[in-house]
Amino acid sequence: MDLHEEMIQIGTEALKASRELVMLGTRSKNSILHAMADELDAQKESIKAANKIDMDEGHNNGLTTAMLDRLLLSDARIDSMIRGMRAVADLKDPVGSKISRWIRPNGLEIVKRRVPIGVIGIIYESRPNVTADTAALCFKTSNAVILRGGKEAVHSNAAIADALIAGGAKKGLPENAIQLIRTTDRAAVKELVQLEGLVDLVIPRGGESLIHAVTKDAHIPVIKHYKGLCHTYIDAEANLEMALNITINAKCQRPGVCNALETLLVHKDIAKEFLPQLAEAMSEYNVELRGDSIAQKTVPSMKEAVEDDWTEEYLDLILSVKVVESTQDAIDHINKYGSRHSDAIITESAVAQKQFIQEVDSSTVYINASTRFTDGSEFGMGAEIGISTDKLHARGPMGLEELTTYKYIVSGKGQIRD
Amino acid sequence: MDLHEEMIQIGTEALKASRELVMLGTRSKNSILHAMADELDAQKESIKAANKIDMDEGHNNGLTTAMLDRLLLSDARIDSMIRGMRAVADLKDPVGSKISRWIRPNGLEIVKRRVPIGVIGIIYESRPNVTADTAALCFKTSNAVILRGGKEAVHSNAAIADALIAGGAKKGLPENAIQLIRTTDRAAVKELVQLEGLVDLVIPRGGESLIHAVTKDAHIPVIKHYKGLCHTYIDAEANLEMALNITINAKCQRPGVCNALETLLVHKDIAKEFLPQLAEAMSEYNVELRGDSIAQKTVPSMKEAVEDDWTEEYLDLILSVKVVESTQDAIDHINKYGSRHSDAIITESAVAQKQFIQEVDSSTVYINASTRFTDGSEFGMGAEIGISTDKLHARGPMGLEELTTYKYIVSGKGQIRD
Repeated sequence: MDLHEEMIQIGTEALKASRELVMLGTRSKNSILHAMADELDAQKESIKAANKIDMDEGHNNGLTTAMLDRLLLSDARIDSMIRGMRAVADLKDPVGSKISRWIRPNGLEIVKRRVPIGVIGIIYESRPNVTADTAALCFKTSNAVILRGGKEAVHSNAAIADALIAGGAKKGLPENAIQLIRTTDRAAVKELVQLEGLVDLVIPRGGESLIHAVTKDAHIPVIKHYKGLCHTYIDAEANLEMALNITINAKCQRPGVCNALETLLVHKDIAKEFLPQLAEAMSEYNVELRGDSIAQKTVPSMKEAVEDDWTEEYLDLILSVKVVESTQDAIDHINKYGSRHSDAIITESAVAQKQFIQEVDSSTVYINASTRFTDGSEFGMGAEIGISTDKLHARGPMGLEELTTYKYIVSGKGQIRD
Repeated sequence: MDLHEEMIQIGTEALKASRELVMLGTRSKNSILHAMADELDAQKESIKAANKIDMDEGHNNGLTTAMLDRLLLSDARIDSMIRGMRAVADLKDPVGSKISRWIRPNGLEIVKRRVPIGVIGIIYESRPNVTADTAALCFKTSNAVILRGGKEAVHSNAAIADALIAGGAKKGLPENAIQLIRTTDRAAVKELVQLEGLVDLVIPRGGESLIHAVTKDAHIPVIKHYKGLCHTYIDAEANLEMALNITINAKCQRPGVCNALETLLVHKDIAKEFLPQLAEAMSEYNVELRGDSIAQKTVPSMKEAVEDDWTEEYLDLILSVKVVESTQDAIDHINKYGSRHSDAIITESAVAQKQFIQEVDSSTVYINASTRFTDGSEFGMGAEIGISTDKLHARGPMGLEELTTYKYIVSGKGQIRD
């Protein structure tokens, strides 16, 4: 069987599993989730052994320290996967819930009800915990899932998937409800994203090149989890103490994540007062500042920001700084250079707040708070499959509800159309 | 300027217009819609003259009578476009409405609010009224629209678009909020569906080859308005009089549309009683029946149904008929051969109803009613841009709400993340 046929078979089996999944009740699903968690616990040693193979190969292949750290499965990280799985069991099941209901003048009753999407493909990179986390969320929402992890985590992912499938099977997990693509052949991704009629949605989670490859080849819907080039705009009417606190938090609390701050926009009227305070605080946190010419005039120690600094997601202790003429100027900069993820305004002005909210075209717009809150659990969703930077179907943090679609159920007594 | 550059310019202008559209209030939008309707009325003669050019060319190029009929713009059809435009002005504006709101334990207020999608491309075939209908719906929801009609309607579409743009401009329609691709070069569609970062969504409305071409080339989200291969299943516990009425309505009332019945599934226990009644009624309506071997045994006048009959959207007075063993058998047939559009069960059995609703994977599932009701205005949405056969973002009839997305607005008092 060649790769093309193999992928069609995986898709066909997933579709078949999805038909069985719609018949599982919440209680059965939760008991399966706990059985999967139990098996992860029971298989801890073999999972760590598989991970050691990946780590050794990673060392030999010259992976960076950061990549090796993402790849590593310690006891603590496996325990965290297990807790995550049980936490998903505790979440409210959105499947079957009524979104709305109305009666037409001809007596037809229309009910709009949440149903699973069907078959979801998840394409991700080096963190092996994604295997367990996303399988749990897709299964809880009665979706069949096809997982495709990074090449460097292939043994770890296989060990985790084997445990989930074996554990789930003990309590009635439908066959092929969770499948892992085990070949490391890159062509498998292209085949996966072209399985029209079999796979309903593909979610790529990873770097720019992964997302572009998926988008280019896909014949099926894709929800991109793209970069976060987040801005904070300090308005002329900002509380500057609050502005500094929020800037420090958004940039420094965890610089390597998508909701961290990358570009700070400062209104010209407060730049002279604010920028020196910023420079002092950022130097304490070892943050390198890169400013436009006006910012540099106020704080000469800043490096010069070039055009690329407005488009780069540093994911590091670097902050680009631009002095703007007005709220409109800040909005225009964000809409031009941003990634439609999370952007904040710090101001006491209701007028500026309103304009910013209306005109900034991002999934999450903040007033007087840190962008770091764009996160499924911080939003109260319990867990997230990721953060969508697309506008269709799901925008921002994607929780369980965003892994469902809906169906109209129309009930009559013989109504026909005139 | 070559086609590639031209399309990028169209996309860039549309994005710019979309930034202005978010600032228009409902009252301004409605007055613009009425001004567009007024101008259609004023330009009626020039629209008909443009249509005559298309009709003459269509005759010369050998278009079928059905295609010429779809292309024709009579006074009555232009009046209907004008009424449609004014009706959209009367619809409730979903933009800005609050979907939900909650407060987090840290005091952050999260509001989920409807916003425009941004820039929408509509690709359609021969009916020129689609130009006005879809422009009105996209504009009412503050989206910029790029229209691409069929080659055979190019003069009609240009005359309609010119009237809309000129009429709208009198009341403040932002420049390039409505654009029509005027070249008939087929390569323009491929360029359009690859305008990542400029166009947010493409909706293809048309035949199978159009949809496949768009899906194959697209790098941006697509909501397919695909075929309707609709089924009705007559259960063993059906009220047979109701079943016959519904079958006649779903098949004959307007056979050329996507929510018309194409395949009838009949439970074996009532086949002997029901099929002769069906044959008699269908012969009155000149419907050709194509049955499987069991149906043919009961009604020998039926033609034989071959495998292709289960996958063909006839859009004509033809009905394929299959005798099934059980509700499960009917469901399996629908999920295998259907187009996930609209499917009905006729039964008094609550058990069969429940099973059918849960397991049939279609946008709209009917109990004891005609599938012909899958329609925006029949659903009470007022108007529709079409009927989505996809599962992501919008499923089934797409009204104004489905032309919006949402944004999270998070308001704080300086909250930072621990």
